[in-house]
Amino acid sequence: MSRPLALTIGEPAGIGPDIALSAWQRRAELSLPPFYLLADPAFVARRATRLRLDVPIATVEPPAAAAAFATALPVVPIDLDVTGEPGRPDASSAPAAIAAIRRAVADVLGGSACAIVTNPVAKSVLYRSGFAEPGHTEFLATLVEEMTGTAAQPVMMLWSPELAVVPVTIHLPLAQVPARLSTELIVATGKIVAHDLTRRFGIVRPRLAIAGLNPHAGEEGALGEEDGAIVAPAVARLRAEGIDAQGPRPADTMFHAAARASYDAALCMYHDQALIPIKTLAFDHAVNVTLGLPLVRTSPDHGTAFDIAGTGRADPSSLIAALRLAARLAAPAAAAAATAAAAADATPIAGASRPAGATRPTAARP
Amino acid sequence: MSRPLALTIGEPAGIGPDIALSAWQRRAELSLPPFYLLADPAFVARRATRLRLDVPIATVEPPAAAAAFATALPVVPIDLDVTGEPGRPDASSAPAAIAAIRRAVADVLGGSACAIVTNPVAKSVLYRSGFAEPGHTEFLATLVEEMTGTAAQPVMMLWSPELAVVPVTIHLPLAQVPARLSTELIVATGKIVAHDLTRRFGIVRPRLAIAGLNPHAGEEGALGEEDGAIVAPAVARLRAEGIDAQGPRPADTMFHAAARASYDAALCMYHDQALIPIKTLAFDHAVNVTLGLPLVRTSPDHGTAFDIAGTGRADPSSLIAALRLAARLAAPAAAAAATAAAAADATPIAGASRPAGATRPTAARP
Repeated sequence: MSRPLALTIGEPAGIGPDIALSAWQRRAELSLPPFYLLADPAFVARRATRLRLDVPIATVEPPAAAAAFATALPVVPIDLDVTGEPGRPDASSAPAAIAAIRRAVADVLGGSACAIVTNPVAKSVLYRSGFAEPGHTEFLATLVEEMTGTAAQPVMMLWSPELAVVPVTIHLPLAQVPARLSTELIVATGKIVAHDLTRRFGIVRPRLAIAGLNPHAGEEGALGEEDGAIVAPAVARLRAEGIDAQGPRPADTMFHAAARASYDAALCMYHDQALIPIKTLAFDHAVNVTLGLPLVRTSPDHGTAFDIAGTGRADPSSLIAALRLAARLAAPAAAAAATAAAAADATPIAGASRPAGATRPTAARP
Repeated sequence: MSRPLALTIGEPAGIGPDIALSAWQRRAELSLPPFYLLADPAFVARRATRLRLDVPIATVEPPAAAAAFATALPVVPIDLDVTGEPGRPDASSAPAAIAAIRRAVADVLGGSACAIVTNPVAKSVLYRSGFAEPGHTEFLATLVEEMTGTAAQPVMMLWSPELAVVPVTIHLPLAQVPARLSTELIVATGKIVAHDLTRRFGIVRPRLAIAGLNPHAGEEGALGEEDGAIVAPAVARLRAEGIDAQGPRPADTMFHAAARASYDAALCMYHDQALIPIKTLAFDHAVNVTLGLPLVRTSPDHGTAFDIAGTGRADPSSLIAALRLAARLAAPAAAAAATAAAAADATPIAGASRPAGATRPTAARP
């Protein structure tokens, strides 16, 4: 029996419980990998009743989850009450949401789950209860560091079958992007992406396309200096390390079908440069993947959607894509294939050792 | 016989002549509207020979062009020699390229052509010969002002059947965008777009989606102040003028199919925000349309492509789309339909009189 995925409850007042229930209902039809939900079982049962979903709940510990999955939604109990109603979050739900994430990391590092899939959290709710991390991804890195003693630099990738993008800077006002971009940040990000495309995705020699910051990639300085001064040196350094990096490329001509065939992932300089093309192409099935950690973590590429929580209108497509991708990336077969392919390849893969102890640039934190 | 389109030669050393010849060859197969090329007929004949294209040239004046179109490529002579070879531009070609544009404007304003389609020019070549305009579009506005005595504010739209986008600022370094954006610029641009969507495209009550500048449209100030301080007031002013404007909308979720169904054109705050989605969706058939002028002008959405000029490898798809769209926008039927629809609509169309004498913000000049 394969190890299950650990799925966190996320914000209980959001659509996380809804899509977990409806994904489980489609488990056979879609041959979904087994997962268990980290949550209060009574809360999950109440939500199922509210949604009129006939989903039996099996309260289990992780080793029994995969066997239970065929006939019931396995819920590994987080013994913290949740009082928030759908669409009406309150601070009481924060401890449970946080405990689920912590437990998921412990389960994967301890070997009882193969990977983590996280439902969306509401940062404002977590902040009100004293949560001090910028977001989900940074919290995962902190937990990994706490539990393993090794620092990790998390990198956010948005993945779909059509396109994979990595925003080098993320949640910044646009006006701050040029000053926050650095050659070091692009190089550190590119190395992690190349490394994990090999280790997790089994791509022997990943091809990275690096977008320019300015229109036309700066048109030789006429439309901005940063592409020559910051981005081009990063591309050169990645290439010097043996990584197949190309750029800076004009961002507007990077994302049509023929262009996409020329690379495995696009490194983009800011949020919308990355998220516009992937959400244009793959709005309902893009997956957020965290690279750079010693564990696989994916999440649906949407928020808590308080306005439709508890109504039955939430679409589980992105969660289903996240579950599938997590299982694929965690599979021993993929890792073995990657290792074999890397061994057969004469070219050394640069960045093959994760930069332990690397500093984590704030700008790279989703 | 319908009035023909005036097609400029563009940069003679680029692919303009190649795609004009190959578009004409497909005139019957694709039922293309009649057009004439403004160029030196001997030069065009030489390029046809070089490309081994069997294209008879008819040297004509505009009134004879439509009748000649079925059996020969009508060329209205620009009596200026061109010495540049394909891929090797020289300053000798600038006067002919400029004269063709001037003649096209005169022909449309004089009634012998119905609209202008421009082949790409090489700005660096024009600059070396003393051309002082920022680009093609501004030169057209200057010519219109010179010939009609009325100032015009040109607005660039990229159009495809899938999506129409208008970059409010265009060829600026990204770092300069926040400071160059203003409520006035967004409002002036939005009014022209709404007006021309009615007048040219026959859309009675055009719906404009206005993108936010920052990620998540600024997330209520957490990710930048401009969306609240600059963009939101522009949306309010457009709405106060009776224009159906919505926003600021998060740019990353504006361009998937369901979102696109909610508007007729997207106003974007900077170059790549507009050009990434349209080139992702419609790379080979997007058309550049100039709004805000008293004439219809379209152009293919690509450059001179010196590397493939004279080789026969240039794809005429975007020029063909530009010819089709120009004919559609110039057709009296479309204008009549728009007028009738507007008259039948109880809601007054704001911006229905072009802002004559309006200043032309530099940032809006493509």
